[in-house]
Amino acid sequence: MAGGASTAATTDADDTTAVTETAAAETVTASVIGASGFAGGELLRLLAGHPNFDLQQATSRQRAGKSIGSTHPPLRGTELRYTEPTELESVDVLFAATPHGVSMGHIDAFFDAADTVVDLSADFRLDTAAQYDEWYDGHDAPAYLDRAEYALPELNRENLPGADLIASGGCNATATILGLYPLFEHGILGGETGATDGDGAGEPGGDEQIVVDVKVGSSEGGAGGGAASSHAERSGVVRPYAPTGHRHEAEIEQFLGTSVAFTCHAVDMVRGASATSHVFPDAPVSKGDLWTAYRECYEDEPFVRLAAGGSGVYRYPEPKAVAGTNVAEVGFELDPSNGRVVVFSAIDNVMKGSAGQAVHAANIALGFAETAGLDFAGLHPVGSP
Amino acid sequence: MAGGASTAATTDADDTTAVTETAAAETVTASVIGASGFAGGELLRLLAGHPNFDLQQATSRQRAGKSIGSTHPPLRGTELRYTEPTELESVDVLFAATPHGVSMGHIDAFFDAADTVVDLSADFRLDTAAQYDEWYDGHDAPAYLDRAEYALPELNRENLPGADLIASGGCNATATILGLYPLFEHGILGGETGATDGDGAGEPGGDEQIVVDVKVGSSEGGAGGGAASSHAERSGVVRPYAPTGHRHEAEIEQFLGTSVAFTCHAVDMVRGASATSHVFPDAPVSKGDLWTAYRECYEDEPFVRLAAGGSGVYRYPEPKAVAGTNVAEVGFELDPSNGRVVVFSAIDNVMKGSAGQAVHAANIALGFAETAGLDFAGLHPVGSP
Amino acid sequence: MAGGASTAATTDADDTTAVTETAAAETVTASVIGASGFAGGELLRLLAGHPNFDLQQATSRQRAGKSIGSTHPPLRGTELRYTEPTELESVDVLFAATPHGVSMGHIDAFFDAADTVVDLSADFRLDTAAQYDEWYDGHDAPAYLDRAEYALPELNRENLPGADLIASGGCNATATILGLYPLFEHGILGGETGATDGDGAGEPGGDEQIVVDVKVGSSEGGAGGGAASSHAERSGVVRPYAPTGHRHEAEIEQFLGTSVAFTCHAVDMVRGASATSHVFPDAPVSKGDLWTAYRECYEDEPFVRLAAGGSGVYRYPEPKAVAGTNVAEVGFELDPSNGRVVVFSAIDNVMKGSAGQAVHAANIALGFAETAGLDFAGLHPVGSP
Amino acid sequence: MAGGASTAATTDADDTTAVTETAAAETVTASVIGASGFAGGELLRLLAGHPNFDLQQATSRQRAGKSIGSTHPPLRGTELRYTEPTELESVDVLFAATPHGVSMGHIDAFFDAADTVVDLSADFRLDTAAQYDEWYDGHDAPAYLDRAEYALPELNRENLPGADLIASGGCNATATILGLYPLFEHGILGGETGATDGDGAGEPGGDEQIVVDVKVGSSEGGAGGGAASSHAERSGVVRPYAPTGHRHEAEIEQFLGTSVAFTCHAVDMVRGASATSHVFPDAPVSKGDLWTAYRECYEDEPFVRLAAGGSGVYRYPEPKAVAGTNVAEVGFELDPSNGRVVVFSAIDNVMKGSAGQAVHAANIALGFAETAGLDFAGLHPVGSP
Repeated sequence: MAGGASTAATTDADDTTAVTETAAAETVTASVIGASGFAGGELLRLLAGHPNFDLQQATSRQRAGKSIGSTHPPLRGTELRYTEPTELESVDVLFAATPHGVSMGHIDAFFDAADTVVDLSADFRLDTAAQYDEWYDGHDAPAYLDRAEYALPELNRENLPGADLIASGGCNATATILGLYPLFEHGILGGETGATDGDGAGEPGGDEQIVVDVKVGSSEGGAGGGAASSHAERSGVVRPYAPTGHRHEAEIEQFLGTSVAFTCHAVDMVRGASATSHVFPDAPVSKGDLWTAYRECYEDEPFVRLAAGGSGVYRYPEPKAVAGTNVAEVGFELDPSNGRVVVFSAIDNVMKGSAGQAVHAANIALGFAETAGLDFAGLHPVGSP
Repeated sequence: MAGGASTAATTDADDTTAVTETAAAETVTASVIGASGFAGGELLRLLAGHPNFDLQQATSRQRAGKSIGSTHPPLRGTELRYTEPTELESVDVLFAATPHGVSMGHIDAFFDAADTVVDLSADFRLDTAAQYDEWYDGHDAPAYLDRAEYALPELNRENLPGADLIASGGCNATATILGLYPLFEHGILGGETGATDGDGAGEPGGDEQIVVDVKVGSSEGGAGGGAASSHAERSGVVRPYAPTGHRHEAEIEQFLGTSVAFTCHAVDMVRGASATSHVFPDAPVSKGDLWTAYRECYEDEPFVRLAAGGSGVYRYPEPKAVAGTNVAEVGFELDPSNGRVVVFSAIDNVMKGSAGQAVHAANIALGFAETAGLDFAGLHPVGSP
Repeated sequence: MAGGASTAATTDADDTTAVTETAAAETVTASVIGASGFAGGELLRLLAGHPNFDLQQATSRQRAGKSIGSTHPPLRGTELRYTEPTELESVDVLFAATPHGVSMGHIDAFFDAADTVVDLSADFRLDTAAQYDEWYDGHDAPAYLDRAEYALPELNRENLPGADLIASGGCNATATILGLYPLFEHGILGGETGATDGDGAGEPGGDEQIVVDVKVGSSEGGAGGGAASSHAERSGVVRPYAPTGHRHEAEIEQFLGTSVAFTCHAVDMVRGASATSHVFPDAPVSKGDLWTAYRECYEDEPFVRLAAGGSGVYRYPEPKAVAGTNVAEVGFELDPSNGRVVVFSAIDNVMKGSAGQAVHAANIALGFAETAGLDFAGLHPVGSP
Repeated sequence: MAGGASTAATTDADDTTAVTETAAAETVTASVIGASGFAGGELLRLLAGHPNFDLQQATSRQRAGKSIGSTHPPLRGTELRYTEPTELESVDVLFAATPHGVSMGHIDAFFDAADTVVDLSADFRLDTAAQYDEWYDGHDAPAYLDRAEYALPELNRENLPGADLIASGGCNATATILGLYPLFEHGILGGETGATDGDGAGEPGGDEQIVVDVKVGSSEGGAGGGAASSHAERSGVVRPYAPTGHRHEAEIEQFLGTSVAFTCHAVDMVRGASATSHVFPDAPVSKGDLWTAYRECYEDEPFVRLAAGGSGVYRYPEPKAVAGTNVAEVGFELDPSNGRVVVFSAIDNVMKGSAGQAVHAANIALGFAETAGLDFAGLHPVGSP
């Protein structure tokens, strides 16, 4: 790829003003499928405050007829009520926040109702039916896999304008990829990765061992409940969760072109995913090299913030620092005695790892300002993010 | 009082559009004194995102020269650095977020630098030097007490336009007063209260016993630290804190014109104050009476939301539901067998109980749209708010 | 009542050594019904470490055949497996930790299997079928109500020796009653209460208004789960829960002989119940009076600890300070300006509020040392208790 | 190595009964230096409930004269008060729970007062002054380094009987070593390790890359406080802490004979350390191999519990499951596609990682039953451990 992600980012950022003015006049209609879940509620909140979207319907099989505020307390006081999925009306854009496996079974109906579908599940993130056979339970609508654009806007925004089926990147994959990408992009790991060619078909990366140790909040488990996610059992945990074989490995491998040894732990927070990647470059690397790599990739990105050392309480990326925002914090530390680079990345899994990223991608696809509707800066202090 | 708070609220809300258009063109300069604390950081965030304020300086004796992001991680990436309080430059509006006792000692200097001073401490909330003798350690600048307008905008916004010294209401007092006020306003408690005549000099209310049991988060203790507020000692507590004689009793009594039996507990959250008021009206009251009282007071208020029963997980006011917002949730339940009304009110103490209320009051004082800069709706789910 | 609770306590404590020596030689068999829940697991743990009980069976309909460690991780490594309730074998003592309503339906079967039944539910706590009609859904086995001894050992231990049906006091009621009892016992409230006559049929107390504001942890909701108790929804809450009409009011009223205005809040802890009682004595009372009242009642009690002021982080009763123990902390503060006494009491709801109290009562009923098996002192620091 | 740790363990366990009976008659006197901290308080609790120790003094420079219950609430009600360190009297055993660097400066005085010194700091854990030069700020009493026995009883208990200077293993090192040791012992990693020869001078292990990602609670930071450990800043964190160069690397390397790439994260719990070790054996390994390795090492250990899969909520080691206990949970999972073994180990850092391990080591050194005073089984449910 000539130019690469950082160039694309810069160009796009330069154009933001122009795009904004154009976009300001335009409004499209949008509905949310599966709106009673956590990602669905976040979409409702974001779309309600978005200058370019006119929110129409929020579907929920279980809550049809009830007010959206009955499920999402910050929306108490709004008029909108859940409708049956079967009563979906035509809109310009459909956001689907259903559990994995649902969208692939209804994708034809989604396109009957809308011109653009933004899917937050894993149903269209992988390139081939074979991958779904390996990592999931197969795929019901493989014909759509080519049509879908995987969305991790910082790294492949050039593919998104005009896309009509967007597969928003997964939370743990987003945190991991954003952390590791600059190392591949700058040849510190792997050599050339095909990550930014936009269809997710990565070129083979290097064979260095990459260990990714992820810590996630309880919102990743969804709004369902169950004994393991009850407050009494889930409070204060450091609980190995999908210790090996996590499905996001497939997404990461597809994007970075190399496999990662991935392990998840549930910890005591509600929102947030923090990925710590331990990598061992073949050649020595300096802190300056790392700063260069990360700055060149991200310095013009509106939703990536570097945090690598410094003074004060918050020195590295932390989920608390990005809670409620679409920002990913990325940072690193050097471990010369072990030939290791430790990469930290932190996101709000409901925002940057789900609804925020979906809106970000839709903004690009539809020609709106990239940051439209996504400008909340976050809170300090905040408890469990 | 003719009209009362609720009428004023309605009128004001009706005028919002016009005010907004006028205000949209206007920008004033503002600085924050004591900006490295929790309330100070929130002011920085709110002013940075406010359409009518142009943030100039953030003072901090301890952090002078450091970036504001070093203390407030969501502001990482902004250019502003702390300046010494002695290097304060002239601005239109000065927000003071210093500990109690500081503003009264520097109020002359504040007015040398600014036309309007919005003080977030308790230094100008009470009416008389005698009250400061009783509840605090006296007052250094009693001449300013008459000049100061206590700000709890829902209940006395008519006093605020043009005010040049604003004493923003305290967190626990705000939660308590917003909860109890409709009962006084509608004669369910006390008879006529002088609360809304604007200078805080309440007329004597009734003599019914009022018990207020408040639960607060750790941010109320400020950014300082200390053994009692360390994570190991403070996690998971239900800790009686100021079990009797809390200073906010003075503020509540001044506003409502009646004394309350007030007790605070520290609980495990960071943001949030939840006041549960147990009252025993002299005459029987129905749920319909209560709904009427609260609706008439608050239905047009942009920052008050009623929550009293209903289905779902969130039925009554909860700090979680308002975390990060300037919204107060207010609700109630009837206990016929004990002749009791239980009133619940919940706010984010850093926002509605401090920085948000200060900006709200400044918006009114300066003729801006009331909700300008305060439109964040909150998050769901969220952990410790 | 001649003698009173405190005298009984003293006498009993004096006899402890003798009782222990006698008891040390004796062992009885015991089984736990409903052992997979939180209280059931705690019983398993206590009985396994108890010198006088030989644990036989742990029944669980849902987990039959599985190891008890699969549910209660501290018991991982023990051999015992759950059995079907229908396979219950004869034992000396049966502890029933089933949900309210179950024991009353199986009480005949319980007595077929055992000589002594200790029930942890509410099924035998009230005196009359009429009370169950009022507060619950009636009673299936009213003939047993007279036979049952309510157990709050500090206050009615004299009724327990030889009792064969013990109704262990409820968690919130235990915290509340232990806090308020000395005020009634010493005439600061109410005059004579019949509380200590042992069958729970209190004499009418005074008519002073008593407000009880209780904060409880998530373990009170049981091991079940559900959306409201999911970690994402339950973390960081101050959530009004049973704001009025809580069933424990019946138990408190029966014991103290006066009604209380009772409100519960869910807060972010797992174990623990903290009751703050706001009372307004008719006559002035001094701190010395209060110390006298509480010391006389509790100074010889092995499981009550007074905490009322002093220095350091922990000045009043706190659930954290008693987590995992059978200890109730009780304390108070005086509010002269409001004529109020604030009483704080804190327990571990799974221990002193359930399984620990049941074992304590059984120890007395069977002539074992009162503290046998209940000597764990608690931890410091500890997070959410 | 002849015999090895597992054999030693088995032998010792077989002898437990005999030892216990002998020991039951014996009591020695003990005092605690630095008793107001978290580890010091835990020592006070353990020694107070220990059948073979007679607790004499608890020193604290800052709290001298105050009751030990003023700092450690579960000890409220005990008579003992803190004494000045200068007023230390002679005892049989001295437990030192002072910050790192203190014991090395007072070790002569400690031996003037006691025959046996058990040090909980890092001051005598490493073998050579050169290591202290590299990892710490040098050493003040290098002559004692040879005399000190490092104590991680499961792995080197044969060195402890009769030892008079015991360096209790560090929390993170203990968790990590207990998790990895069986892999070295059984040749899955490294080949022969010299770990168990008892003086900590490990033979070189293999060169496989080992990544250790540790999550710790706030009690690891001690009782001090400070902004970073305040509740508001520390709640809900996943905070990189000592991302590289952690001093426990030295201890782990010395014991296992190989370096590890070690990174710590602060997470929201108070007690607990959870180490996840990612290793890549040179040769393929099966789950059966792993079970064999871990069972042979630990099946007779009273304080190690294996947890590796199974059903239910708790499938792998978790700090919650061992909170308050001296138990280490150890488990593993196989990741065939990445050629990886993931090892999980979880301890209570204040117990198994500090005070509990010190008492365990002292029990062995003095010929008491290994488990004396350490039989608390833990709690379920429990919040933040």
